[in-house]
Amino acid sequence: MDTRATLLRHARDTLATLRLEGRYREFARLEKRAETFPRYRLHEADGDVREVTVWSSNDYLGMGVHPVVLQAAEAAIREHGAGAGGTRNISGTSPLHAALEAELASLHGKDAALLFTSGYVANQAGLSVVLAALPDFQVFSDAKNHASMIAGMRGAPAARHIFRHNDLAHLEALLSAAPPEAPKLIAFESVYSMDGDIADIGAICDLADRYGAMTYLDEVHAVGLYGAEGGGIAERDGVAHRVDVIEGTLAKGFGVHGGYIAGDATLVDFIRSVASGLIFTTALPPVIAAATLASIRHLRRDGTRRAALAERAVALKAALDRAGLPRMPSESHIVPLWIGDAALCRQVARQLLTEHAIYATPINYPTVPRGAERLRLCATPLHTDAMIAELVTALRAVLPERKEHAA
Amino acid sequence: MDTRATLLRHARDTLATLRLEGRYREFARLEKRAETFPRYRLHEADGDVREVTVWSSNDYLGMGVHPVVLQAAEAAIREHGAGAGGTRNISGTSPLHAALEAELASLHGKDAALLFTSGYVANQAGLSVVLAALPDFQVFSDAKNHASMIAGMRGAPAARHIFRHNDLAHLEALLSAAPPEAPKLIAFESVYSMDGDIADIGAICDLADRYGAMTYLDEVHAVGLYGAEGGGIAERDGVAHRVDVIEGTLAKGFGVHGGYIAGDATLVDFIRSVASGLIFTTALPPVIAAATLASIRHLRRDGTRRAALAERAVALKAALDRAGLPRMPSESHIVPLWIGDAALCRQVARQLLTEHAIYATPINYPTVPRGAERLRLCATPLHTDAMIAELVTALRAVLPERKEHAA
Ligand SMILES: Cc1ncc(COP(=O)(O)O)c(C=O)c1O
Ligand SMILES: Cc1ncc(COP(=O)(O)O)c(C=O)c1O
Repeated sequence: MDTRATLLRHARDTLATLRLEGRYREFARLEKRAETFPRYRLHEADGDVREVTVWSSNDYLGMGVHPVVLQAAEAAIREHGAGAGGTRNISGTSPLHAALEAELASLHGKDAALLFTSGYVANQAGLSVVLAALPDFQVFSDAKNHASMIAGMRGAPAARHIFRHNDLAHLEALLSAAPPEAPKLIAFESVYSMDGDIADIGAICDLADRYGAMTYLDEVHAVGLYGAEGGGIAERDGVAHRVDVIEGTLAKGFGVHGGYIAGDATLVDFIRSVASGLIFTTALPPVIAAATLASIRHLRRDGTRRAALAERAVALKAALDRAGLPRMPSESHIVPLWIGDAALCRQVARQLLTEHAIYATPINYPTVPRGAERLRLCATPLHTDAMIAELVTALRAVLPERKEHAA
Repeated sequence: MDTRATLLRHARDTLATLRLEGRYREFARLEKRAETFPRYRLHEADGDVREVTVWSSNDYLGMGVHPVVLQAAEAAIREHGAGAGGTRNISGTSPLHAALEAELASLHGKDAALLFTSGYVANQAGLSVVLAALPDFQVFSDAKNHASMIAGMRGAPAARHIFRHNDLAHLEALLSAAPPEAPKLIAFESVYSMDGDIADIGAICDLADRYGAMTYLDEVHAVGLYGAEGGGIAERDGVAHRVDVIEGTLAKGFGVHGGYIAGDATLVDFIRSVASGLIFTTALPPVIAAATLASIRHLRRDGTRRAALAERAVALKAALDRAGLPRMPSESHIVPLWIGDAALCRQVARQLLTEHAIYATPINYPTVPRGAERLRLCATPLHTDAMIAELVTALRAVLPERKEHAA
């Protein structure tokens, strides 16, 4: 067979289907500007450039443009250059990597932490190594767990049990039905990023204790943002010590790049020693470690941006509610706006952009289920009252007939 | 069962075995210094800091400390901040990402290129997406392929056929034995990083043509280094147009961080549209894209560092040969020195470090087979004649009884 021709035909068919379903993604070219964030420069295909307000950044606290972070990054570039130049084991571990791992461990009250090149890789490598370590592992996974956790679970021979999202009765039913003598792990998130709801970590740990299970918690959308020092929801709820593995990203609340896990020293050392996704890849650049260290240290001692984020989320939700816009319920800084149709979602986003200079990514399948398409809005501490007012005006203009969907 | 206790027991046992076999890895804390590269500052566990010459960096050309790259990085930090703040689809694509993808496509003479957070992820995501696209895919994989390619192949249901390293007769035997009507892909590298030998890309493409197979080539240890513009061995050999997918890293020859694939526009668009490892992870920081762009553009128009690398490799090999040291044969800039025992390999490396201020990572299982332990040396353009002389003197001092193993 002519593999190339067959594959290209399949690729063309798939892309045609995506287009037909309104799910074909074109990546908008958005120039993030340190001085004007969250105002970006949108570069159009025809070469036009114009300013837009971005409501879809996961640089939740604006730490990616904080002077403390920028100064640390600039200094590190001058001192240490651009890339690490090696894997962690082959000349790629700088004292900055070690210091950042110590800082992350301390942030979460754990013995040890381990960096990965992303939160995605942290989940994929971390979960697959743990689940491959013992025979007959049973993993209990929240139905809304992130793709990176699913990739990690798929990378191991463990039996997977999916519990309904945040449904602890269902989780308990599955735990009690599983073989009592099999090793067990509960994998879940704290803040679910597409809905903005939050897991009851303590109650899940209770179940884990009752059934001899370990707990693996993705705090990607919470680290930096919640807890007295930005340790996440587990810190806020006073339960971090009960969670076996806390996984996080350096790329959202901390504003930089990379991912990590934190936990027991022996367990972390084990993962460090066997994880393919860690051993066989270039270490994060020293500049990334330096910038993240500056970000975390700032956020641990200064809660101003955390408080501002919470206040801005309240302000945004209130403004949407006042305008009768179809905001979905959310317990966090994440504010989803219901659309419910892929093509409409794209169209609304396009109108916001072309008519109102507002950028909000249409969220569609596979990120959310089909029919649950939405705009997902986040107000960072740098989104002003005027920006919120502009957003509301624009949404009312492009979503006039949908007022009746309001909560 | 108490999962935590059982897992920790397994972790402790595994770590004990690694120690017993001399394979337990402690990451040396090496501070890369832009001004003195390849002289680093080694930070000892007891707090001591001293200068060492590093012979194990994959910043092969020293581009990670090139002024052109550093200036681009500093400017990008000031302008665009630290992190991208979003996935490629959710506000994380800057014009710099688009420009870098265009540059990489052009470098390889391909229609399109696609960035990933690392070369590891590029291989894992790229291969698994391609191999999952058609039923009954047969993949033919060189026995020495990198762990990231293996991860990609494992991520798809394809049937795997392993051919003996660079053995094209064996590859052909496997191709001809496979079902003629099944889709086929040959996955291989150009420069193999632990031996320094080089595949015959043209001959592999001949076989691919004969059996209707596609070709997937990892040029991680060649991009920036070989070819008139640094397009790799495929460029050097004039066969880039015959390879379907070229995969590379931004973290070695280019001196920065990240990975990519380049190929047919439809195929790249397909991978972009379905690869979980791309869709669900934060985009590389704009500063990484800016620094890499500067690096590639420099290397395309100026071959000085490429020529210097080749000259330094010849000088290093000649010096080792003159001293009767057990250098393994190599067709590239990679110069492995045979040790053949894990414990001895660690001991030699330790002595080089403590007695001679020379850092060369001991390479052991699983990076190379057991019994094939080695030191792997690379002379960058910034390694001087004096450094080579020091290395040779040190190796003679710590490897006196092994002279008879010389090639
Ligand atoms: C819940 C969750 N986990 C993990 C990740 C991956 O983190 P990173 O972007 O650092 O790869 C993401 C999103 O990117 C996420 O939403
Ligand atoms: C052959 C090969 N492919 C891919 C990779 C992964 O590239 P990266 O370091 O960018 O993840 C490496 C080494 O790191 C490698 O040696």
